[in-house]
This record gives sequence, C-alpha cells and structure tokens, in this order.
Amino acid sequence: MGVTLNCDMGEGFGLYRIGDDAGIMPLIDVANVACGFHASDPDHMRLTVRRAKENGVKVGAHPSLPDLAGFGRREMKLSREEVANLVIYQVGALVGFLKAEGMTLNHIKPHGSLYGMAGRQEEVAQGICDAADVFDVPLFGMTGTMHEKIYQARGKQFIAEFYADLDYAPGGTLIVTREHDAKEPALMAERCVRAISEGQGTCEDGSFFPVRCETICVHSDTPNALEITKAVRDAIAPWH
Amino acid sequence: MGVTLNCDMGEGFGLYRIGDDAGIMPLIDVANVACGFHASDPDHMRLTVRRAKENGVKVGAHPSLPDLAGFGRREMKLSREEVANLVIYQVGALVGFLKAEGMTLNHIKPHGSLYGMAGRQEEVAQGICDAADVFDVPLFGMTGTMHEKIYQARGKQFIAEFYADLDYAPGGTLIVTREHDAKEPALMAERCVRAISEGQGTCEDGSFFPVRCETICVHSDTPNALEITKAVRDAIAPWH
Amino acid sequence: MGVTLNCDMGEGFGLYRIGDDAGIMPLIDVANVACGFHASDPDHMRLTVRRAKENGVKVGAHPSLPDLAGFGRREMKLSREEVANLVIYQVGALVGFLKAEGMTLNHIKPHGSLYGMAGRQEEVAQGICDAADVFDVPLFGMTGTMHEKIYQARGKQFIAEFYADLDYAPGGTLIVTREHDAKEPALMAERCVRAISEGQGTCEDGSFFPVRCETICVHSDTPNALEITKAVRDAIAPWH
Amino acid sequence: MGVTLNCDMGEGFGLYRIGDDAGIMPLIDVANVACGFHASDPDHMRLTVRRAKENGVKVGAHPSLPDLAGFGRREMKLSREEVANLVIYQVGALVGFLKAEGMTLNHIKPHGSLYGMAGRQEEVAQGICDAADVFDVPLFGMTGTMHEKIYQARGKQFIAEFYADLDYAPGGTLIVTREHDAKEPALMAERCVRAISEGQGTCEDGSFFPVRCETICVHSDTPNALEITKAVRDAIAPWH
Repeated sequence: MGVTLNCDMGEGFGLYRIGDDAGIMPLIDVANVACGFHASDPDHMRLTVRRAKENGVKVGAHPSLPDLAGFGRREMKLSREEVANLVIYQVGALVGFLKAEGMTLNHIKPHGSLYGMAGRQEEVAQGICDAADVFDVPLFGMTGTMHEKIYQARGKQFIAEFYADLDYAPGGTLIVTREHDAKEPALMAERCVRAISEGQGTCEDGSFFPVRCETICVHSDTPNALEITKAVRDAIAPWH
Repeated sequence: MGVTLNCDMGEGFGLYRIGDDAGIMPLIDVANVACGFHASDPDHMRLTVRRAKENGVKVGAHPSLPDLAGFGRREMKLSREEVANLVIYQVGALVGFLKAEGMTLNHIKPHGSLYGMAGRQEEVAQGICDAADVFDVPLFGMTGTMHEKIYQARGKQFIAEFYADLDYAPGGTLIVTREHDAKEPALMAERCVRAISEGQGTCEDGSFFPVRCETICVHSDTPNALEITKAVRDAIAPWH
Repeated sequence: MGVTLNCDMGEGFGLYRIGDDAGIMPLIDVANVACGFHASDPDHMRLTVRRAKENGVKVGAHPSLPDLAGFGRREMKLSREEVANLVIYQVGALVGFLKAEGMTLNHIKPHGSLYGMAGRQEEVAQGICDAADVFDVPLFGMTGTMHEKIYQARGKQFIAEFYADLDYAPGGTLIVTREHDAKEPALMAERCVRAISEGQGTCEDGSFFPVRCETICVHSDTPNALEITKAVRDAIAPWH
Repeated sequence: MGVTLNCDMGEGFGLYRIGDDAGIMPLIDVANVACGFHASDPDHMRLTVRRAKENGVKVGAHPSLPDLAGFGRREMKLSREEVANLVIYQVGALVGFLKAEGMTLNHIKPHGSLYGMAGRQEEVAQGICDAADVFDVPLFGMTGTMHEKIYQARGKQFIAEFYADLDYAPGGTLIVTREHDAKEPALMAERCVRAISEGQGTCEDGSFFPVRCETICVHSDTPNALEITKAVRDAIAPWH
C-alpha cells in the first residue's frame, strides 16, 4: 500500500453522535479510534471496532487528555509518567475490544492537544513513547516536530501524516481549533496531492513548507468530512 | 497452592488514599486491582501492578459499574451488552499495565454492585461471561448464586470465594454496605476456618449455610483490613 | 396563561449537539434546562439560559441522575438524602446562570430515570421535595403517580404534564426509552387535544386513561421534535 | 474582626476522606468549601456546610478547574468565558446548599491551578471577576499578582491572604505542589506573625518579600494541618 487515508472515528458518546462514521468508514484505510477520554465510551468503541472490521479498515488507538467536556482540545500540564499511564490505559482498553473482534492494533495516534503537546514538549513525546513501547506499534505524527525527533530517537516507526482538513500557519505549524470549519473539498484534495507528489505543504497564506506524507488525515467531526474524504480519496488514487 | 487469600487493591484515586496497600500486599496471594470506574486512575493502576509484582502477587481485574462517587456500590440498570463492554474496557486497560510490567491477567472479579447484580440477574452474569470470553481467565464468585450457575453453564472456571470481613444474612446472602465496618479479626478468622474445613458459612445470627471456599477475600477499605488479613492468613495456614 | 408548552433544552455537551434548540425555543413557553449531570456543561447552560431570555421563555431546572454516558436514563439506587443533595447541587448551579442573566427559577422537573423513579418510589419523591423546599418553586409531574401524591402531601405546587412525543402503556404508564423515535406530528397533536379537552390520555393500544394536563412536554432529542412542537402548538392554541 | 484564619474544607469525595475537617473547623473563621470539580460531591458539600454552620464558620466558595483526578492542580488552557461559566456553576451549586442551611456566601477563592493561573493570566482573572459579579462577594487572593491588579481594577473587594503551610520562592512566588508536605508548626506560625506585623513574607531561602495579610490560609490536605492551624491560631491571637 502507498499513501493511506486515515480518519478519527468513533467520537460519539452516549446518545451523542458526531461525524458520519457509517459513511466515511468504507472510504478509508485506517481508523484512529477514540478511547473514552476525549470522546467515546465502551459501547461506541465496540461498535466502531466492529464497523472497521466489516469494512476491512485497520484500527489504531486515538488516546487523549482526560477532558471529555473539552474534546481533548484544551492543553493540560502533565508529567511524562502521567502521559505514559493515561495512554497505556486507553490503548489497553481499545486492545480489549480488538481482541473481542479478533483484530490487532495497527498504530497509536494521540488526539488533539496531546498530539500538539507531543509536537512541542519533549516530556510529552517521551511519555507517548513509553506507552508505545508496551504495545510495540508505529506512531503517527507530523514531520518537523519534537515528536518526530523523539519517536525516531527512541527507534519507533514514525508514520508521517498530512492534514487534509486543517490549515497550516506560515512555516508549517498546524492550526488546531476546538471546532473545525467546513473546507472546500477540491482545494483540500489539491493540497494533499502537492504534499504527496512535491513534498510541499500549503500554508493558509499560500506559502509552502517541506513535508513528508505517508498518510492523509481527515477528522470525522469536520462538518463536510464525507465530501472531503471522497475528494481526497479520488485525488490521491495514483499514490494510494 | 490450596486456599488463597485475595484482596481488593489499588482503590485510591488522584490524591485520595484508601486502604493500606503497602501493608497488605505482602500478605496476600492474589490482588483484585481496581480499573478506574469505581476507584483508581492510570497512575494508581501502574503503581498497584508494580507493587503486586514486587511481592509476587498475582493480579486479577476488579471492574465495576461506572460510578466513582458511589464507589461502584450503587446498583444501576444496564443491559447485557453494556455490562460486557464496560468490563472489556476496564480489563483491557488493566492488561495494558500488566503488559508494561511483564505480567499476565490471573482472573476477573467484578466489584461491588456489579458483583452483587451478577449474583442475582442472569443478564448481568451473561455480560460478564461475554467479557471473560475475550480474556480467557477464571471468574471469582460466590457459591449458590446466579453468577455461579451462569459462569459454569458457560464453561468458565469458577473460583469460589468466602468473605472474611463482611456479614452474611441468614440463608447466606452477603450483606453489602457502602462503607465497611471494622470487624473482630479472631472471629473473622474462625469463620474462615469453618468455611474451609467444614464447608459452612456463618451468618450474623450464628446460623450456618453451605459454602465452598477456594479463596478468602478481604477488602482493603475495611478499617482494620490489615489486622483481619494477618489473622486470617495465620488461621488458614494449614490449608494455604 | 392556560395550557403551556414545555421542552427539555440545552442538552448538548462540549462539542456535541442534540436537539434543535434554536428552532424550538421560539415556540415554547417553558424550558427545562439540563444541569450538567445527564447532559450540558457550564457553557451550554449559559447559552441556553441566554437563549430562553431572548425568546421570553421561562426557565426551570431539569436535574438528573449523575450519568452522562447513560443520558440519565439508567436507574440507580440512591437514598433520599443523596437525591436531595444532587438536586440541590444542580438546581443551585442553574440558579447561578439565571442570576447572571437577571432571571428567576420557574420550576423543577427531574429528568429521565429520576423522574420515573420519583413516580414510583416514595423515598425518591421525598428527596426531590426536600430539594424543592430550598428553592420554593413548583414541581412538574404526571398525575396518578407516587410523585404527585408525595409532592401534594408536602404542599408543593404540582403542575400536571402530558407527553406529546412518548407512548403510554395500557393503564397510563409512560414508556421511557434510552433513545426516542420520531412520531407522527398530527397524531401526537390530536392526543394532546384529547388530554386537554377530555382529560383522556391515549395508550399505544388505543385505550384511554384519565389524565390532567396543565402543560404539554416535548423532548428536544426526539428526532422530529421541531415538527411535533409546531403541530402541538397549533393544535392547543384554543387552550393556550 | 482583624486577621482571620481560613482553610480549604470539604475536600473528600465519595468514600474518600482527606483532611481532618472535624478537627479543624472549630479553629477557623472562614471555610473555603470545595464545589465538586477538584474534590467533593453533593453529599460532602451538604455535610461541610452543616459543619461550618454548627461552628459559626463563614463559608466561601472554592471553585476549581474541572479535574478531579488532578485535584485541580494541573493547569489547563481555558478561555475567559469558560472560566466565568465554570465558576458560576460551582458557586451557584454551593449557594444552593447555603440556602438549604440558611446561610449566605461570604467570598470566592479559586482553588489550586485556577488560583495560580489567575495570579498570572489576565483572561483568567477577568473570568473570575465576571463570575464574582454575579454573586457580589469579595475575592481572596495574593498581593503582587495579576489577580490583585484585575480584581481591584474591576472594583471587587480584595482580601489579601498569606499561606501558612506553603513555601514561597525568592521574590515571593508561591510554590504550589500536587501533594503538600508536613511543615514545622512553630516555624509556620512565626512566618505568619512576621507577615502580619511587619508586612514581610519569608521565602524558602530566608529572604523576605513585601506582603499584605488580612487572612491566613491553611490547607486541610497538608498532613499536619491540624497542628499548624492550632499553632498559627495561637500565634496570631493578638491580631485576630
């Protein structure tokens, strides 16, 4: 397989639904499944793992800061050991559901602010590696960040991803907001193609930054995630 | 090994401490480790698993209803599937910490009201078996209950336990309270010996009920748990 | 004012949305505002109170069992004092937001299983009265239930309500489900008119039961709540 | 009344206990009562308010970041509006219990990291003022901080406090740790007297910083809080 398409999945909670999981799952290669700390609960995790299985989609863990009300998108100060333990807890829980469905864990991709913090703070990136050591799977991340540096120094397999539905500030810093806006699918698809074929990410001001892209990410809670996913999937077909 | 001594362990949360885990751990054979739903959090789970390892104590999962404020001792109405999924989630999380410390899961013992509900409601007992199937370990329980009947019908290994620090009502029903009272250690030890050697449990009115006892349980949140554990350990030495 | 229209409002949580609050608010007289235990959070409460104020809608508290994952629709065993205290907590929190917006509390209406439990268990109904005594406002409830009996014996003002979007079992017992189905708006409106004008509730088998109806309730999480609300509002106009 | 003695109270949760509330309450003038976000629950709040009333102790609200596992001592990134709303929610809840016991709110004192953040970040201090405006009570805080500046600019009554059981770094910055160590009661009492009588706070290296002190604070979760409270109470008697 070449460049894959990954999506954050299973982010409902109780009666709440967010994202068109049923629509998106057949279009992607890899699902990052929420583990109950920023979204999801045991029933949603079971359902999401089953849905991935039915669609032949690989499952990674999408652990988060413990902040359901903030959807894991509010930074918190945590020690390296706290990070390691909360990631082990969440990934372990997901592995339980994978065992129940006869599947195995594909990777770990931290969610939201935990992802962003790992990109800037060494202690957080180390804590994530401590947890990944337990499960012995690759880590998803962005090139040019602290987490890339630490993960690689720790000998983890690092899968470089590019965001199809988020903007980058000049210089290549990802702009993370609490709620995501809808994006123009064709424009997003074009940016993905440039990232793959030319190794250039596009900033919101139109400037470029060097990027490596082995997998493309879409968020299921982006309002028009289904349309973006379809457009990107079609556009990256030659490299898929 | 003959009759073992098991204890609920790792029931602190954040800054809160409950039970003298450091004192009790060296005295027991098997620890039922809280999984974050009635007590504990990722850091306490890690610490408790490490402490068990250091003392050569086997670790089982102690999953619960999702009720931290009620310490898992307030009944809730749940479907079989909800029970299965919340047990898989918690046990999976604990297995993550066991992997981190190079240990394996010994058994599953539901906590508090989940244990009591499984003793009376078939759907709850079935849900627990559904979860236990995933991890393929024995289940702890009481003889003469619905959970014994269902677990055995499902072909699970059923380890019969007797409570050293709780009272039984006439007829043999366990009396579960939100907070536990201190008990007279010598009396409790005597009851354990009778349960093991004569197959007779003692009720609070002094009457007896038939009981099978392969393991003795003490709760770490019983005020004088350490003294009870010592007294019981000494008394059951011939069968240990 | 004659027969009023009330609706459960503000049941989003964090990024999650449920119910078309913006569409329904202008159509109703009274909003039962979620208080953070089955749904909502401080930001949603503030927004919902503001929205009620802008539309001239009165605000009551909609306190619940502490069960966000179960949307307050899973029964729990609680003592009278626990019920009283959790209701005081939630209603007090809402009163804070009402003070912030210069409004006053109109009534208390327990949510979901807490409402149902109060309709059958004296201790729960007493606990709710204990809390209502603190705030000195009327209670919403159904005729022919334990809560009506207790509330009236305690001298509380009891506002009798009829459900526009739920079915009643033969005999008049409300059928409460975790998720609500869409209902035929015209049929629901017709049932409301019969309840008001003839004092007869309609059961799902077409039989009737005696009912008193001072206010009509619609749930915002019923899939076509907006259509039902419009149909009922038009139909009950003569008695409104 | 001159210089008062205040203490954080009611920080148990469910079965968990922390701090000797029964022992300390008779010794203090003002209790800062936890509101359920870093500690406490509705039952503990009721109990704590009753205990304050029995001892003639005034009650203030001690609202926190939403982080029970971190005891409100892990910083989180929050907007001004989020801060305002979470403070209104918690203070409103406490006011419910005060109404139930015929008492009124004395003041607001943010807990842990929320207190620290308000001392450094203008937006957080503004959010706390927005909430305090609703309840129209004084705010507790430290001199020489951002919160003093903002509270006073907003026209709030600012009560200056000095910590009896925490260390100050050179320059006068309070050193906040997740868990508190026991302190030498006589030494702590001596520092309090110097703060009151000479307007000088003592840093851990023995240097001094200018301080204003209208109230002395002890934390109930400091291991020997009772001894410190007694020593300080005796020592400050001339100014009490």
